[in-house]
Amino acid sequence: MSVEVIAIGGYEEVGKNMSAVKIGDDVVIFDMGIHLDRIHIHEDTDIARMHSLDLIERGVIPDDTLMKEVDGKVRAIVFTHGHLDHIGAVAKLAHRYEAPIIATPYTLALIERTIKQEKKFTVNNPLQVLNAGEKCQISPDITLEFVGTTHSIPQTVTAALHTSEGIIVYANDFKFDNHQVLSPPPDYKRFRELGRKGVLALIVDTTNACVKNESKTHSEKIARILLKDVMEKPLRQKQGMIVTTFSSHIERIQAICKIANQSKRKILLLGRSMERFCSMAEKLGILDLPKSASVYGSPKAVNRALARADEHRDKYLLVTTGHQGEPDALLPRIANGKTQFTVKPGDNVIFSSSVIPNPMNMANRNLLERRLKSSGARIYTNIHVSGHAGPEDQRDFLRMLNPTHIIPSHGTLEMLAAYTELAEEEGYKLGKDIHILRNGQAQVFNGGV
Amino acid sequence: MSVEVIAIGGYEEVGKNMSAVKIGDDVVIFDMGIHLDRIHIHEDTDIARMHSLDLIERGVIPDDTLMKEVDGKVRAIVFTHGHLDHIGAVAKLAHRYEAPIIATPYTLALIERTIKQEKKFTVNNPLQVLNAGEKCQISPDITLEFVGTTHSIPQTVTAALHTSEGIIVYANDFKFDNHQVLSPPPDYKRFRELGRKGVLALIVDTTNACVKNESKTHSEKIARILLKDVMEKPLRQKQGMIVTTFSSHIERIQAICKIANQSKRKILLLGRSMERFCSMAEKLGILDLPKSASVYGSPKAVNRALARADEHRDKYLLVTTGHQGEPDALLPRIANGKTQFTVKPGDNVIFSSSVIPNPMNMANRNLLERRLKSSGARIYTNIHVSGHAGPEDQRDFLRMLNPTHIIPSHGTLEMLAAYTELAEEEGYKLGKDIHILRNGQAQVFNGGV
Amino acid sequence: MSVEVIAIGGYEEVGKNMSAVKIGDDVVIFDMGIHLDRIHIHEDTDIARMHSLDLIERGVIPDDTLMKEVDGKVRAIVFTHGHLDHIGAVAKLAHRYEAPIIATPYTLALIERTIKQEKKFTVNNPLQVLNAGEKCQISPDITLEFVGTTHSIPQTVTAALHTSEGIIVYANDFKFDNHQVLSPPPDYKRFRELGRKGVLALIVDTTNACVKNESKTHSEKIARILLKDVMEKPLRQKQGMIVTTFSSHIERIQAICKIANQSKRKILLLGRSMERFCSMAEKLGILDLPKSASVYGSPKAVNRALARADEHRDKYLLVTTGHQGEPDALLPRIANGKTQFTVKPGDNVIFSSSVIPNPMNMANRNLLERRLKSSGARIYTNIHVSGHAGPEDQRDFLRMLNPTHIIPSHGTLEMLAAYTELAEEEGYKLGKDIHILRNGQAQVFNGGV
Amino acid sequence: MSVEVIAIGGYEEVGKNMSAVKIGDDVVIFDMGIHLDRIHIHEDTDIARMHSLDLIERGVIPDDTLMKEVDGKVRAIVFTHGHLDHIGAVAKLAHRYEAPIIATPYTLALIERTIKQEKKFTVNNPLQVLNAGEKCQISPDITLEFVGTTHSIPQTVTAALHTSEGIIVYANDFKFDNHQVLSPPPDYKRFRELGRKGVLALIVDTTNACVKNESKTHSEKIARILLKDVMEKPLRQKQGMIVTTFSSHIERIQAICKIANQSKRKILLLGRSMERFCSMAEKLGILDLPKSASVYGSPKAVNRALARADEHRDKYLLVTTGHQGEPDALLPRIANGKTQFTVKPGDNVIFSSSVIPNPMNMANRNLLERRLKSSGARIYTNIHVSGHAGPEDQRDFLRMLNPTHIIPSHGTLEMLAAYTELAEEEGYKLGKDIHILRNGQAQVFNGGV
Repeated sequence: MSVEVIAIGGYEEVGKNMSAVKIGDDVVIFDMGIHLDRIHIHEDTDIARMHSLDLIERGVIPDDTLMKEVDGKVRAIVFTHGHLDHIGAVAKLAHRYEAPIIATPYTLALIERTIKQEKKFTVNNPLQVLNAGEKCQISPDITLEFVGTTHSIPQTVTAALHTSEGIIVYANDFKFDNHQVLSPPPDYKRFRELGRKGVLALIVDTTNACVKNESKTHSEKIARILLKDVMEKPLRQKQGMIVTTFSSHIERIQAICKIANQSKRKILLLGRSMERFCSMAEKLGILDLPKSASVYGSPKAVNRALARADEHRDKYLLVTTGHQGEPDALLPRIANGKTQFTVKPGDNVIFSSSVIPNPMNMANRNLLERRLKSSGARIYTNIHVSGHAGPEDQRDFLRMLNPTHIIPSHGTLEMLAAYTELAEEEGYKLGKDIHILRNGQAQVFNGGV
Repeated sequence: MSVEVIAIGGYEEVGKNMSAVKIGDDVVIFDMGIHLDRIHIHEDTDIARMHSLDLIERGVIPDDTLMKEVDGKVRAIVFTHGHLDHIGAVAKLAHRYEAPIIATPYTLALIERTIKQEKKFTVNNPLQVLNAGEKCQISPDITLEFVGTTHSIPQTVTAALHTSEGIIVYANDFKFDNHQVLSPPPDYKRFRELGRKGVLALIVDTTNACVKNESKTHSEKIARILLKDVMEKPLRQKQGMIVTTFSSHIERIQAICKIANQSKRKILLLGRSMERFCSMAEKLGILDLPKSASVYGSPKAVNRALARADEHRDKYLLVTTGHQGEPDALLPRIANGKTQFTVKPGDNVIFSSSVIPNPMNMANRNLLERRLKSSGARIYTNIHVSGHAGPEDQRDFLRMLNPTHIIPSHGTLEMLAAYTELAEEEGYKLGKDIHILRNGQAQVFNGGV
Repeated sequence: MSVEVIAIGGYEEVGKNMSAVKIGDDVVIFDMGIHLDRIHIHEDTDIARMHSLDLIERGVIPDDTLMKEVDGKVRAIVFTHGHLDHIGAVAKLAHRYEAPIIATPYTLALIERTIKQEKKFTVNNPLQVLNAGEKCQISPDITLEFVGTTHSIPQTVTAALHTSEGIIVYANDFKFDNHQVLSPPPDYKRFRELGRKGVLALIVDTTNACVKNESKTHSEKIARILLKDVMEKPLRQKQGMIVTTFSSHIERIQAICKIANQSKRKILLLGRSMERFCSMAEKLGILDLPKSASVYGSPKAVNRALARADEHRDKYLLVTTGHQGEPDALLPRIANGKTQFTVKPGDNVIFSSSVIPNPMNMANRNLLERRLKSSGARIYTNIHVSGHAGPEDQRDFLRMLNPTHIIPSHGTLEMLAAYTELAEEEGYKLGKDIHILRNGQAQVFNGGV
Repeated sequence: MSVEVIAIGGYEEVGKNMSAVKIGDDVVIFDMGIHLDRIHIHEDTDIARMHSLDLIERGVIPDDTLMKEVDGKVRAIVFTHGHLDHIGAVAKLAHRYEAPIIATPYTLALIERTIKQEKKFTVNNPLQVLNAGEKCQISPDITLEFVGTTHSIPQTVTAALHTSEGIIVYANDFKFDNHQVLSPPPDYKRFRELGRKGVLALIVDTTNACVKNESKTHSEKIARILLKDVMEKPLRQKQGMIVTTFSSHIERIQAICKIANQSKRKILLLGRSMERFCSMAEKLGILDLPKSASVYGSPKAVNRALARADEHRDKYLLVTTGHQGEPDALLPRIANGKTQFTVKPGDNVIFSSSVIPNPMNMANRNLLERRLKSSGARIYTNIHVSGHAGPEDQRDFLRMLNPTHIIPSHGTLEMLAAYTELAEEEGYKLGKDIHILRNGQAQVFNGGV
């Protein structure tokens, strides 16, 4: 039985991830993400209302039209975490396949919400929960297993397909963090077991594989220390105080709330996507918001909350969206004087985030910081750690899994190439057992690990 | 008689240049520029209609309110070239002083036009022409001399104030280019003579003073070679062709026209500011447009010209504004499908410009290039040389003028500091004979070179 | 009574720090450091045997010849910590002044050792201990106080001179670390009290004042987490294992030993300077070495220890000098096959250090890493946090001390300028209350805070 | 008949280039270069005396041992230009093959000299001249053609193998320079003809394929303008004057001599490799040295010349080796006081070269510049243009040749990847018709263009 890995999206960019694995006549799809960056090219792009084919043409979602020529039956669509570059196109593409959607509960809840907001397509695929540490039979020949790992969103897993030809591992995205509060450490023991059983192929996130200066990606424990050191004084001062972070980063939001809860400030979690991710996480028992915290998503509710906070600025901590400076997000709107909350001299603004490295973010962020400073705010930046595995984590992963073949993904060609050099240090060789695929290409393995 | 240099603007930023020199009771003002970058902070800024004090508060124009406390009479407002960061605030500030405006003809024509477009103030200062190589008496004690130099706009001069206490030189901006077509080389001989007579103080442009990798700023002759090598093939091909450059850079536009004129393409100089600078330069006999060239500035005329060019794309060369990717300028509008000209596969777009290093330009430019490429255009970037003196030019200048005191200007503190290190290599010392001023500060010299 | 700050060294470079403060007729000297980087210029420089004047000419030590013209009596030579760029020239310069040397016990012990090794001069200045939190009378008008702070060497203090004209604070170097194990947090309470009493002038370390991406310098607690995460696996493996760090960074060495002590490996602290700093720290009760640790400094002892470690590579952890790749230090010699210990495939080498940014270090370090890798070693880099205050720490410091005047030090002009921009955000102004001095210049204050 | 391209060296680094092309049973080898950078790893490497296998193990020369398994007969060893990373291993490897060495006269002369200096092996391969524009029959099925191109050494050609399966082009290295004095422009017409006849595969230099800021690599005409502008004044001054450049860059040396010949200074071309390349070029009638020029290579002759120049420093122009700061080359030895020529204040040193980007060069060069400056010299850097094709040149080349397959070479994986992205913009696709090979890998084509 031959095994084929089909690169659909995310092999030429950081975004719109989608891969398919064909084992004999069965196909498993991993991820259906969007590439937000492409929207800037065509300003009139309205994702919710546009047809898949138009979005494909504009490069916003993966081009899965090649799947028509794949001679096999799709048995499952698997999502390993809930970030938009992995699930954002589900409502545009999933209905084309008669197959269940499988994910952990939090990821599934986010997918469900995306499907509900879709205006163009009706998506009726069955939704099936699979937890970390569990397996499910996908076809007579294939068993899917979710192995617990860590990332910057809860309930992230690494997927393993058990087949007669060996195991195929899909690890996209992950970091190795031994000190998260909401998630246990990655299941290294299981990774080693898979390695001993025989991993035929590893499809792997290369985003941070070759960053300089961070051998091993810093743990969230470090983010907690940084946050605590930096938030302590502002919490006790009389001035306004804002923390901005990734809405989906529930682990971080939990840390922020816990630190703030030691103070007398009430916590306001504000912004549409903040509401989406936090409410869902709270409902599922992942996020434990203190009593002093409230979540507001609708513009009206946000505005009312901001008006209160403006009047009693020393009584509230605002936790907002907008850390990339996106003009329509909350913090940039606050900085630009478009809300009821006025930034005043001495207010503290903490960016618990990095700048996603792309010229538009850098420009937006620069403008945001200059506006905040010109209003007299004090800014703390980069109170943050990354969610992607660094080079030595990647090396550890290879040594645990010992895969026969490697397919680097989730990056530009330069990033895949940099990962390749790391894997070559571990004894692999490009063109032999490392395979760089471009979107639309496939790699066939003849199995027999 | 004491001499005082008053830093009004441009000593903390690249923009809004303005300086005053007080000799006894007489004051000479140099430049009244704007700082366009600050407009982004307050999106609702409408320069033409806003009052000086509002623009001062927003950091858009120099804060000359300190001049009220200067005990002296302003005898002249001198402009050494016509770039906006040197003349752009003239209509907001000049009327406050009872003094003539003195500049070379081209600079003066641009000033006149700025004054005419002003909606808030009436500016009635007399306009007085002074050519390079000429002098005029400004007060019984002061003679102003214009020494010819080179830059990226025609008729740039270095100003010298002859006083009983020595000469004060204002060299902001300049480059040393021996091979321009429209301007003779800088008058090195006169610089050396001034040096021998005794220069008390030099106020000097530091923009490129410490760039790496370009000891001596490249000549326009090099830009001509680059342009010729790059334009040759596109001119002969059947595809569309666009060159974009600084509208005020008449030397460059002349070079582009000359090269294009060897081909059969008609030249269309397009865009509002392209029209402003080129027409003026043509009228004054500086720019010699070939018969095959037309200039269009009004949106209607531009659109008509673009429609023609779109139909016969191999018959025209478009020379446009928009090289920084500014959303409202012509090339970005073309790339964004907002004009009658559609970019098609194989079209050639030549950027005869650099990216002015600021995050917003970098983002706009990146978006512009990606749009052009996604339409299939081929892009040539950086077919350009700088207009600011490099480190070895600056060193030559110091050795020619041998000033007693140096006041670096036209830059952030880091740029002034970098220039300072260069001047210290030449035997000067910060705090002794190099003086870093901040906007609003003054330096008094007791003369006696 | 006038106060004068005299910049002797360290105001144009990171190195050879030396400052003098003159209050009335009394002078207090701070620091006498060396600038190791200058030695490369003259390869034949032999510090121990050379005369001060030669070393001054070569730029290796501060040029204190200007002190001859200072009309006052030196009352004390004060050292606030024991790094070489602060104490390294003591044996060359101190004997010229009839004044006691004052420092904390650890700093004093290091100074004593430097004096003993000197081959050219005899230094007989009395050595006087002053602990953090203590004061001593230096002259009828001046009291010296040591305020506890943190840095990357134990017993670092910030010095405060109490005078009738106000307090002069010398804070060079420091970081704000609330989580060191060997040192209590900085005495913020005392800083605030000094601020309230009235600080006339602050002389301040600017090294990291304007780093990007690290608002507040990371704590040693973060270094401990990083080290623990990274050392854990190698400690349990069968391969060789080396950690390299700054010999003077006792806090870090303590952390390394504590982590290693959980394993079965014996700890070998190796290298001449490793022996110097660790033995001293152990003798003074600062460093608490576990029983499993031994320290070897002499080449013979080091070699014997390496021979044993080579045979039983899984039984030892080597802690060595040489993290900058300096050709004569231990780790580079090991990597180059010049010792009894052979690096083998699978050995782990952990750099608990950063590369001091200078082209020679970068080249040496690159060569070292390539050699280690070509022997098959696995390398972990940058398991480290900085010892210098980041921008938000500096801002906090200014708000606590509220000094009337600021003199940035410990940096190139670009670094001083960058600090200046930060201080200007806090309401200071260059030329008014921020004073950039060059080596050899002085700033007079007329007191009266 | 199948065609196979075998990557032997230079596919993972900039250095030790070597490729083989197998057509049916015939093999053609291109280049046998060295990788100087690897010598630093093992300090005791003595190239002239060491055996090939040792040098292969140390990574200094290409590992051609795999050729034993190639089932075919080597018919020719072809060199397309004379740089060391292309010819430097000829004396170590060529004797293993019973085949003639084919090159242009200048390249052949350099090869001959390398063979003569070899201490370990005797190389008896016949040497065969082939000029640009000429062809020769290599086997019944293969014709080799040399097409003239440009680079930074004279008589560089692009090789074309005419076979029944199509043409294989080896273009490694080249730039497109239309304005060299010693070489005609590249033979674009012939490239287009080859394209029309059918190029099966292109092996191509990627060194500068993706530099930013230089769309099209600058011409030597630009270097001439820069040199002239910068040399003019120093030539007329009374001070010492040194120009340093690549010894093999005869075009540049010719330009320097021509400019210097306008002055009264005598020209001294100094240094062992300066002598080697210049004498050869002069003997072959390529370099036309003015009468005022002398060439000295032996230490003794160089020293005598330097002694004269030291005494009459305004009478000589020194043209030396050592621009990378290599400690044993002439200029660094001069700067370090190890020769009879003392650098004095006001002397001018012009670097007509770039820094080859590698940490050791950067450190050496930094040290060299600091030493020169501390002696008072004035330095001009980067009076230089590159010898490798920029991105738009590469794009032009692809459009001319229109190859069916592309094999990027002469670079690290990141460089090959960057070139690949450029080629993908031109419609190629990695894994389909772009093939990234690693040293030791081969790519088979089934021909039939």
